Amino acid sequence: MDKKKNISMAVIKRLPKYHRYLMDLMKNDVDRISSKELSEKIGFTASQIRQDLNCFGDFGQQGYGYNVGELYGQICNILGLTKTYKTVIIGAGNIGQAIANYTRFEKIGFRLEAIFDINPKLIGIRIRDIEIRDIDYLDDYLKESSIDIGVICVPNNNAQKVCDILVKNKVKGIWNFAPVDLVTPEGIKIENVHLSDSLLTLTCLLNDID
Amino acid sequence: MDKKKNISMAVIKRLPKYHRYLMDLMKNDVDRISSKELSEKIGFTASQIRQDLNCFGDFGQQGYGYNVGELYGQICNILGLTKTYKTVIIGAGNIGQAIANYTRFEKIGFRLEAIFDINPKLIGIRIRDIEIRDIDYLDDYLKESSIDIGVICVPNNNAQKVCDILVKNKVKGIWNFAPVDLVTPEGIKIENVHLSDSLLTLTCLLNDID
Repeated sequence: MDKKKNISMAVIKRLPKYHRYLMDLMKNDVDRISSKELSEKIGFTASQIRQDLNCFGDFGQQGYGYNVGELYGQICNILGLTKTYKTVIIGAGNIGQAIANYTRFEKIGFRLEAIFDINPKLIGIRIRDIEIRDIDYLDDYLKESSIDIGVICVPNNNAQKVCDILVKNKVKGIWNFAPVDLVTPEGIKIENVHLSDSLLTLTCLLNDID
Repeated sequence: MDKKKNISMAVIKRLPKYHRYLMDLMKNDVDRISSKELSEKIGFTASQIRQDLNCFGDFGQQGYGYNVGELYGQICNILGLTKTYKTVIIGAGNIGQAIANYTRFEKIGFRLEAIFDINPKLIGIRIRDIEIRDIDYLDDYLKESSIDIGVICVPNNNAQKVCDILVKNKVKGIWNFAPVDLVTPEGIKIENVHLSDSLLTLTCLLNDID
């Protein structure tokens, strides 16, 4: 684990995919796999795999392959899957509700504590037994809670304001679904899901084949 | 536009961000911008910007900057924003419903034609006046329609099957929300939104700061 601090963002972005494939291998009772076999499944080159996995320890053995269970455990550890993350969702529109309803995120340690919205029609409604609260009380709520992740699902023009409230209250992780690039002090970790950007990537690719 | 075929995937992935920032500049009546000014806003280096934008034409002029309107128009064109895309959503669960309800995707030319699900409780319900149909009729429906994009929002174990039906019926674009890597013949364009992977990236980053 001492090598961990040197893991690049590019490797971090590939880790969830390793995690998915290793979990499948575990489910299928595969104990060992070579970088070549893993390459065929996962679609990265064998050399890329060796380089990536070398970032966080000495797992592979020439002519012997990787110990699937050990590798899986280590990746879970690096991905922070051994912890739980107290989470609030801000914005209970389409995507906010979808995220709130995703029970499988709980396996990742995502523990939904509260949901906030500005819309009086939504305030008071319950999603999976969690009441939607008035966004005016977000600041007060955060002062009294210890929240790890804030999920921003509000429209563009409110996203930075919500982000500032989260940061002010020591929320360190932001999962941002608003199509804006948030400005935060150093140390705050942001992961963006820009759905419009993703759709535009697809239309761009489609346009290319005409 | 002759340079377009050479645009790399890395540049394509950055184009939606250029599109967003240029749209903002247009809204604020900015006519010209230098790569340095754009760099400060968008967060790519000025040299990266010059290199990217050079991929699809000769826009910038030394000491003069980019013509915002011209550049925006060209990026819209490359992103395929001048067309409409007939779309079906397969899977009307949390994320499928969220996507169906996103009216702002219509501005990108996303025209929702039909929604399919396997759940009898959902079949017949209307989302934005589009009735959820029985997934058993997906194949027949696609035979008679000319669909550009299929949005896969079904669980993992059905995603490849749905993908195969789409591909068989000449759907060229797949927006995949299932956390699996779909296998398709060449020429099919896939854009993945793996929400669990995204959340894992965030937990990994958070784990790093402990």
